[in-house]
Amino acid sequence: MALLNENYLKLKAGYLFPEIGRRTANFAVSHPEAAIIKMGIGDVVRGIPRPVADAMKDACEELAHDESFHGYPPAQGYDFLLDAIAEHEFGSRGVTVAADEIFLSDGAKCDSANLQEIFAIDQIVALTDPVYPVYCDSNVMAGRTGDADSSGRYAGLVYLPCTADNGFSPPLPEGHVDLIYLCSPNNPTGAVMSKQDLARWVDYARREKAVIIFDAAYEAYINDAEIPHSIYEIDGAREVAIEMRSYSKTAGFTGVRCAFTVVPKELLGGTRGDGDVSLHSLWNRRQSTKYNGVSYPVQRGAAACYTPEGSAAVRDLVEFYMGNAALMKTELTAAGYTVFGGDNAPYLWIVCPPGIDSWGFFDVLLQKANVVSTPGAGFGSAGEGYVRLSAFQQRDRVEEALERIRQL
Amino acid sequence: MALLNENYLKLKAGYLFPEIGRRTANFAVSHPEAAIIKMGIGDVVRGIPRPVADAMKDACEELAHDESFHGYPPAQGYDFLLDAIAEHEFGSRGVTVAADEIFLSDGAKCDSANLQEIFAIDQIVALTDPVYPVYCDSNVMAGRTGDADSSGRYAGLVYLPCTADNGFSPPLPEGHVDLIYLCSPNNPTGAVMSKQDLARWVDYARREKAVIIFDAAYEAYINDAEIPHSIYEIDGAREVAIEMRSYSKTAGFTGVRCAFTVVPKELLGGTRGDGDVSLHSLWNRRQSTKYNGVSYPVQRGAAACYTPEGSAAVRDLVEFYMGNAALMKTELTAAGYTVFGGDNAPYLWIVCPPGIDSWGFFDVLLQKANVVSTPGAGFGSAGEGYVRLSAFQQRDRVEEALERIRQL
Repeated sequence: MALLNENYLKLKAGYLFPEIGRRTANFAVSHPEAAIIKMGIGDVVRGIPRPVADAMKDACEELAHDESFHGYPPAQGYDFLLDAIAEHEFGSRGVTVAADEIFLSDGAKCDSANLQEIFAIDQIVALTDPVYPVYCDSNVMAGRTGDADSSGRYAGLVYLPCTADNGFSPPLPEGHVDLIYLCSPNNPTGAVMSKQDLARWVDYARREKAVIIFDAAYEAYINDAEIPHSIYEIDGAREVAIEMRSYSKTAGFTGVRCAFTVVPKELLGGTRGDGDVSLHSLWNRRQSTKYNGVSYPVQRGAAACYTPEGSAAVRDLVEFYMGNAALMKTELTAAGYTVFGGDNAPYLWIVCPPGIDSWGFFDVLLQKANVVSTPGAGFGSAGEGYVRLSAFQQRDRVEEALERIRQL
Repeated sequence: MALLNENYLKLKAGYLFPEIGRRTANFAVSHPEAAIIKMGIGDVVRGIPRPVADAMKDACEELAHDESFHGYPPAQGYDFLLDAIAEHEFGSRGVTVAADEIFLSDGAKCDSANLQEIFAIDQIVALTDPVYPVYCDSNVMAGRTGDADSSGRYAGLVYLPCTADNGFSPPLPEGHVDLIYLCSPNNPTGAVMSKQDLARWVDYARREKAVIIFDAAYEAYINDAEIPHSIYEIDGAREVAIEMRSYSKTAGFTGVRCAFTVVPKELLGGTRGDGDVSLHSLWNRRQSTKYNGVSYPVQRGAAACYTPEGSAAVRDLVEFYMGNAALMKTELTAAGYTVFGGDNAPYLWIVCPPGIDSWGFFDVLLQKANVVSTPGAGFGSAGEGYVRLSAFQQRDRVEEALERIRQL
């Protein structure tokens, strides 16, 4: 029998969101009358901006004619989009990122799962706890961990607990680590890292010659002008950090699929004897060998986000969801809940009522309020005692959900 | 310094097609007057079918409205497409594949690179020689090989030479292997495996408890009614084979991005102690953790290939390119070349003139005829002495290329 990758067998049952989906589906089957409101998975609900849809439709029409057909896309992406990203996502904030340091992909989830491949298998990985499960699971599947203990923590990983006590700001590891996943604005806690927080991490990474994988998928949700949108706003970060971004939550691309990752050319990886090698060249090799580029109409749609009309529409979408977040924070706090996040992020991180754990509170919210949340424990053992609510919902559904939760 | 995955450093310089791109670009810069005809990389040139473009445009419009918006796609794909695939790609040929055994992706290249992840790192991999480089390179990057020798063969891989002497039909390995990559119609040789050839391989895999990864990306190009389109046309194949398909070369999706992989539920992988596990469940776990589904408009476009108008248009595209292939085979043979392939595949596998190796003939074709080919040696040491020409070009360009080659 061909032997399988037994690292997969270390994974706890079911990826978090499919598990939530199964519980919700089971409840829906047994309670067909329930009008379930989904605020669990961070999926958007509003239409993509008109200029984006029009650009995609025009691109589909282009593809239908031999004269304007586009075949295999360039491995990193079309210049029209890479140039727009370099200018509008970075240059406009005074951050230097060259177009050829940007790698388009079909999702930040894919990039955050795949980036670990270019590092040695024995590298020590640090994760915040709670954490977006993909950072963890992809390292488990690669064989960088031992088994999970009863709390769900895998042997060999370094966990950085983010709790109310430390303001959900990840503490530096006590010893050396090689690879660090940071996410700000944070999924799931909704916390943001200040310039000082990030500078502390860049200093650590420079001192320890570690690499930071910085997930900025939610940067558009930052309201506070003092909070950095890119880790490259920190001096020296180009030598230690990879940054991921996504169109999923900005332009409503969860069903369209487009994201990008920045690998600065200064960033090096070590070898056991052959000297240092550019991680940019390694990631380029990974992507050109194992990936075939982003759909042409999708790239045209993403580029339309940078037109005046497109960027205004994206801003409207973000503001709409942040209006939800503000309403949720106000109402839930008024109802007696302790609520974190929601100010610079589309997620609220809510303390469970006394005596109920997070899967328990998930079940209460589902069964009594017919509201789907995400149990904090699904993001790690330090997420126990919390649930995450997403602001990605229509306003009337948010208001209805809040009313039902108030009546619990 | 965080250490990198040194397996990457074993890779020979540059993935084949970027290398060809670089040589071609250099020639174009130094010879701006040359009208270069690209017949190297297997990229299509004709527009996507009208019904496909219209379906994609309608889907983009759907996404622009809250009422018809689609967020994260289901991990395996939408039922509307999975059901259509099960019926039209398999059921119509008397092959049983259930919709939930099909996993959509954004490319057969990605799937063929990623499938090795679900197998143990010490499994013995057999590859044909010549071979599509992704099967090889993805296993090198994963660490399943030693270094390459001077002929480019990696220690630890089992190579199955496909030459004119054996009709380019891969011979069974002399000993045991665990994982076998087969491709029919073959890229690059254009050879096809008969029912008897495939049955011999299915028997081998059943006897040796090996798994076959069968790449059927070019099945639509089969003219001969006796040649199987799916490995599942062979009895017993569901217990030993994974099959990959693509819309790239059928519906012109190289720039649209959609493919699928079939993992039958009977297919098992072994463990060192915990019994056998369904590879379907492992691949599902891999895809739901590390991938986020295919763009909604793309799925709608793929589904439109199965309408009467869509399937007629796809047939027309395939017949057009096969018209090129027939013309190329006739003319090149008349010009004195020995030519294989091209009857049931869009690729021609051409013997280099005496005394010229395959990169040498590549350079002659580029510099003297301004035609881009693919050097056979880029596909493996048994590809030395051949170049591949692709039939994916406009008819007038094919005619012009043939005229120039005749005049060499």
